[in-house]
Amino acid sequence: MATFTCSAAHLRPLLGTDANATSAAEYICNGFDAVSNMFVAATYAIDNTYLLFSTYLVFSMQIGFAMLCAGSVRAKNTMNIMLTNVLDAATGGLSYYLFGFALAYGSPSNGFIGKHFFGLDNFPIPSADYSYFLYQWSFAIAAAGITSGSIAERTQFVAYLIYSSFLTGLVYPIVSHWFWSADGWGSAAREDHLLFGSGVIDFAGSGVVHMVGGIAGLWGAWVEGPRMGRFDSDGKPVTLRGHSGTLVVLGTFLLWFGWYGFNPGSFLTIVKTYGQTDTPFYGQWSAIGRTAVTTTIAGSSAALTTLFGKRLLTDPWAAIICGFVASWVLIGFNKLAEKLKYDDPLEAAQLHGGCGAWGIIFTGLFAKKSYVNEIYPGKPGRPHGLFMGGGGRLLGAHLIQILVVTGWVSATMGPLFFLLHKLGLLRISSDEEMAGIDVTSHGGLAYEFHDDNDKTIKNSFMITNMDTSTV
Amino acid sequence: MATFTCSAAHLRPLLGTDANATSAAEYICNGFDAVSNMFVAATYAIDNTYLLFSTYLVFSMQIGFAMLCAGSVRAKNTMNIMLTNVLDAATGGLSYYLFGFALAYGSPSNGFIGKHFFGLDNFPIPSADYSYFLYQWSFAIAAAGITSGSIAERTQFVAYLIYSSFLTGLVYPIVSHWFWSADGWGSAAREDHLLFGSGVIDFAGSGVVHMVGGIAGLWGAWVEGPRMGRFDSDGKPVTLRGHSGTLVVLGTFLLWFGWYGFNPGSFLTIVKTYGQTDTPFYGQWSAIGRTAVTTTIAGSSAALTTLFGKRLLTDPWAAIICGFVASWVLIGFNKLAEKLKYDDPLEAAQLHGGCGAWGIIFTGLFAKKSYVNEIYPGKPGRPHGLFMGGGGRLLGAHLIQILVVTGWVSATMGPLFFLLHKLGLLRISSDEEMAGIDVTSHGGLAYEFHDDNDKTIKNSFMITNMDTSTV
Amino acid sequence: MATFTCSAAHLRPLLGTDANATSAAEYICNGFDAVSNMFVAATYAIDNTYLLFSTYLVFSMQIGFAMLCAGSVRAKNTMNIMLTNVLDAATGGLSYYLFGFALAYGSPSNGFIGKHFFGLDNFPIPSADYSYFLYQWSFAIAAAGITSGSIAERTQFVAYLIYSSFLTGLVYPIVSHWFWSADGWGSAAREDHLLFGSGVIDFAGSGVVHMVGGIAGLWGAWVEGPRMGRFDSDGKPVTLRGHSGTLVVLGTFLLWFGWYGFNPGSFLTIVKTYGQTDTPFYGQWSAIGRTAVTTTIAGSSAALTTLFGKRLLTDPWAAIICGFVASWVLIGFNKLAEKLKYDDPLEAAQLHGGCGAWGIIFTGLFAKKSYVNEIYPGKPGRPHGLFMGGGGRLLGAHLIQILVVTGWVSATMGPLFFLLHKLGLLRISSDEEMAGIDVTSHGGLAYEFHDDNDKTIKNSFMITNMDTSTV
Repeated sequence: MATFTCSAAHLRPLLGTDANATSAAEYICNGFDAVSNMFVAATYAIDNTYLLFSTYLVFSMQIGFAMLCAGSVRAKNTMNIMLTNVLDAATGGLSYYLFGFALAYGSPSNGFIGKHFFGLDNFPIPSADYSYFLYQWSFAIAAAGITSGSIAERTQFVAYLIYSSFLTGLVYPIVSHWFWSADGWGSAAREDHLLFGSGVIDFAGSGVVHMVGGIAGLWGAWVEGPRMGRFDSDGKPVTLRGHSGTLVVLGTFLLWFGWYGFNPGSFLTIVKTYGQTDTPFYGQWSAIGRTAVTTTIAGSSAALTTLFGKRLLTDPWAAIICGFVASWVLIGFNKLAEKLKYDDPLEAAQLHGGCGAWGIIFTGLFAKKSYVNEIYPGKPGRPHGLFMGGGGRLLGAHLIQILVVTGWVSATMGPLFFLLHKLGLLRISSDEEMAGIDVTSHGGLAYEFHDDNDKTIKNSFMITNMDTSTV
Repeated sequence: MATFTCSAAHLRPLLGTDANATSAAEYICNGFDAVSNMFVAATYAIDNTYLLFSTYLVFSMQIGFAMLCAGSVRAKNTMNIMLTNVLDAATGGLSYYLFGFALAYGSPSNGFIGKHFFGLDNFPIPSADYSYFLYQWSFAIAAAGITSGSIAERTQFVAYLIYSSFLTGLVYPIVSHWFWSADGWGSAAREDHLLFGSGVIDFAGSGVVHMVGGIAGLWGAWVEGPRMGRFDSDGKPVTLRGHSGTLVVLGTFLLWFGWYGFNPGSFLTIVKTYGQTDTPFYGQWSAIGRTAVTTTIAGSSAALTTLFGKRLLTDPWAAIICGFVASWVLIGFNKLAEKLKYDDPLEAAQLHGGCGAWGIIFTGLFAKKSYVNEIYPGKPGRPHGLFMGGGGRLLGAHLIQILVVTGWVSATMGPLFFLLHKLGLLRISSDEEMAGIDVTSHGGLAYEFHDDNDKTIKNSFMITNMDTSTV
Repeated sequence: MATFTCSAAHLRPLLGTDANATSAAEYICNGFDAVSNMFVAATYAIDNTYLLFSTYLVFSMQIGFAMLCAGSVRAKNTMNIMLTNVLDAATGGLSYYLFGFALAYGSPSNGFIGKHFFGLDNFPIPSADYSYFLYQWSFAIAAAGITSGSIAERTQFVAYLIYSSFLTGLVYPIVSHWFWSADGWGSAAREDHLLFGSGVIDFAGSGVVHMVGGIAGLWGAWVEGPRMGRFDSDGKPVTLRGHSGTLVVLGTFLLWFGWYGFNPGSFLTIVKTYGQTDTPFYGQWSAIGRTAVTTTIAGSSAALTTLFGKRLLTDPWAAIICGFVASWVLIGFNKLAEKLKYDDPLEAAQLHGGCGAWGIIFTGLFAKKSYVNEIYPGKPGRPHGLFMGGGGRLLGAHLIQILVVTGWVSATMGPLFFLLHKLGLLRISSDEEMAGIDVTSHGGLAYEFHDDNDKTIKNSFMITNMDTSTV
């Protein structure tokens, strides 16, 4: 922002030769300094308010995940999957506080791994406050939440605890360091040595969050194998219906709500002009609003395409294309998963891995010059989207990101899941799987629509009583 | 706000005859200009933060609607009604982006219809940013959500798609242009030619949102006729109980949460003084807080009146009256609906149509002079509420609004529903209605409390197994 | 904040002897005054935005409470307990508006009870706006919500109405006056005569909210006695399982979401520097962010301890200790409750009473000097936590708080519950309790998974049809 630093030394001679000119200059400059300090405080307050409430919205996505996951599994595993979502948030809270944030954003550091702020030591710093830590934590647990869907209904609780800590404390933070830390080798915000002169523009985590969570889930689900009964003796897929469409739709709706924290919140600050003196009303607040609009329109377009499978029409127009293609990517990967007898109860690897990769490519193709320059000012000639006349270097950097994220997550999470498998810690026994994890591990089924008194009575009255007790 | 524009030309001669006076004046004015620009940016940031998060709250009402609607219908139609709520948001996202917003707020325009900003072309403008578009979209889909309740449990999915696009893309936007656009013929914010010298003060949509949604629902439910079994062979009403009181109460609670976006958010900006130098602490932020308080107290009063049907007592006191009467309006219209054999599963037309009209009349009776002048400054003598000594002109304008909204929505949505009826696209077959739409159109029931494995086993073990599987 | 008040009288002689010096000084000071006014307005706008949205988050805890409570009771009492949560909000809305807020924060007043602002008369004032009222209301109904859990599944609706109004209108407001009003005898914000030279630092209501709600619940549950069947004929505890683990987990998650309003929101304002000129980036916005972080980490730690009962490690480290101990406090009190045959369906007295007291002690032990001085500036030598080298006076004041809150709530709510008991208004009849309150008082069960049409058919087709109707 065009700030003003008042210099009494500069102002004094301008005020003439009067003996009091020095005092006058100091008095006036004191005024400007005080105003400037007030403005600095107000800016911190606004930016932190914006980022904290965005964080809370992202956190609400954990509730959305829990609902979506619960509704998508059979009633007998409902408590289990919801508790894993709580576990993601809780283990993530500790592991990201102790290690994860330091590995991701510890600064100054090299391009590969951060090395400060363990346990938030010597934090906050001028460029990042506690709200920044919390926002990044909410992203880390979102990645872990994606993976939990892939391995639902057949995984031991201890395995969740281990993979979740490992993912939020190590695997995810290092990827976020590469692409989101200003020191990261693939970051578009580096001072120099930008990858392909561009760096990766992964604004809200297509690669860093979705691909990481999705590919981790891919390995977990692959190592575990499909749920009992998911493919019949001829290898034909059998639908294992979730137990509550109500929870699925409400969870999805709540995720939509949370996206307004995830996407527009990724700007991190809102008090920032773009230096256009002829359009002072257009600043980062506008870019944030536009991101909320594209989130809405991409979501709307994807919802309609998925519901009706039909073609729809044309900045926001690109959001329609993005959502439209994404829904076909998901449909395609789901077909492929069935062919390969891959069983992912939440379709998490297909959705987050597949559409995450699509999101990365989409940006390489459609990133608009003016928007790129708004976010990364100071280098007006930097590459932008291929289809927008920006050359292929941004796309190149983005393809590198897809390869690197796939490789890193496979090299870390794949062996972890294999190891848990070999140690007998990964998959529950077939007896447990048949009975449901809630009964074997969580003290009973999630639902109890008639109570113990009724049950006693029922044993004598039999059917007529059941009739009312299950109403 | 009392801003300050520093003029170097003005300041220069005041600084004496020294040769450097020009430089001194420029230096000081540069300082003030920089400070002023910083303040402008901060103001945009605060106002957009306020409006965006208000929008998110209003969006959460769609989740509340979905829960309330789902709980109010029978289990066999749960998925159907929740998907229509998703559909409202999604089709609304596209139709309001492509057409609706332009027809509502395209400016400059005439008093009847807007004609700019199709597909957000040439947007944002100094007086409206993306957040403003998104806020208005969240209102448009709320109107469509109201209507969906009226025609629940018996309507074809294609009919929803058509009426929802038509309502959010055309019918609703034009009404909002009339009363909420600064160009609208009935707007209280017009520069001149105010309706009855007053214009309509429909702050948060009693007429523009609730009556539009409610009257559209009235026509839909009327054309479709009551659900099978709603009235017995003697014409006596039969209660068709919703399947989950839990969802009804939680949805209602979530709507209360969302109202804090709907009502206080309708101020659109929060950085605005009311120019009272003796009470600088009292500004638009106070009016916003007061609106949140009245929202709370009107809601509390209506909840208690509806729960207990008893009388309660006395700015906030008026909120108690408003909520008290509103609950009786609803009770009365529900009695009338039963007499007329009108079947509205969510009582949407009665609630939103009836209490919407009451809200319009209430404002005409109770609008307080000082509050009206805060919102519409510059015309201190303008009319206010009849019972507050403000004359009958505001009430007159408001009665016009009731007539015009009723007429317009009836003239557009009535024929649309009749046409869909004639084309056989409106109501599902009686077989479908008996079986439930979830089974016939959405791939199965919403709930599956025992899974397929159990089902197979059950066929052999019969009753004893059922006993546990349905627990 | 270091504000600047421009004095033209002071500036004029500094600008030399030119005849226009007076005009120049006035012109420049006009500029600074205008800037200062703009900044004041912006500060009000930011602070009110922050407080209002924090309030909305706290309100969402009522939805979380409703879900948690509903899931924790048997299906037959679901509607009843959720309606009591609505009732808490609604009666609290009126009683806190009419009386409660005045008794709590009516100022100027004595140290024991407030005496202004009944019905928000002569409100707002420079130091408190409507948002402040609403924030305090959201806390008052949280206290009432805690109590409702303790007396669930056996209490008459009229008893809820009475205790809820009494608690939110009188008992709670007076406690909050003592510790949170600047006039309160135990407040740390008093000008002078601080309790033990310190006053009580009960930042977000361990004593004022949780102990009040928990001890009220203790008396209610004690007077009512345990639910039928809670202890068998030998006095052994029998688990009466709640009907939906899904609602329990989702409600808990939503409460976590709402805590971000409850704890960080308790700062009330966000635009406040801590006067550290070398670290201008560190201000109240940072303390707020840190509170959100500690909320997360204490919650994570408590969740993991409760789930696994295992030891975990070490500002945020203290949050881990706090959460860890709190979970053992709860476990211990639950053991004690079983021994005493005390039946609290939500464990509300154990959780909020026990852990509330622990929270008060924890602060007396661990309050960090610098944080105390940030919040209560101007008295650098004031006591802080015993374990942090701050002496025992803060702990002493906090022990007084525990005694006084316990005594006051026992002296008011205990007799109230006894009186209701004597009048036969407290507990429902044993027939009602067996059948469930939803059937006897709320028009039927909360759930209806098959509809009336099916029921008719079922009577003829018997078992095979039941099979599908309960799916």
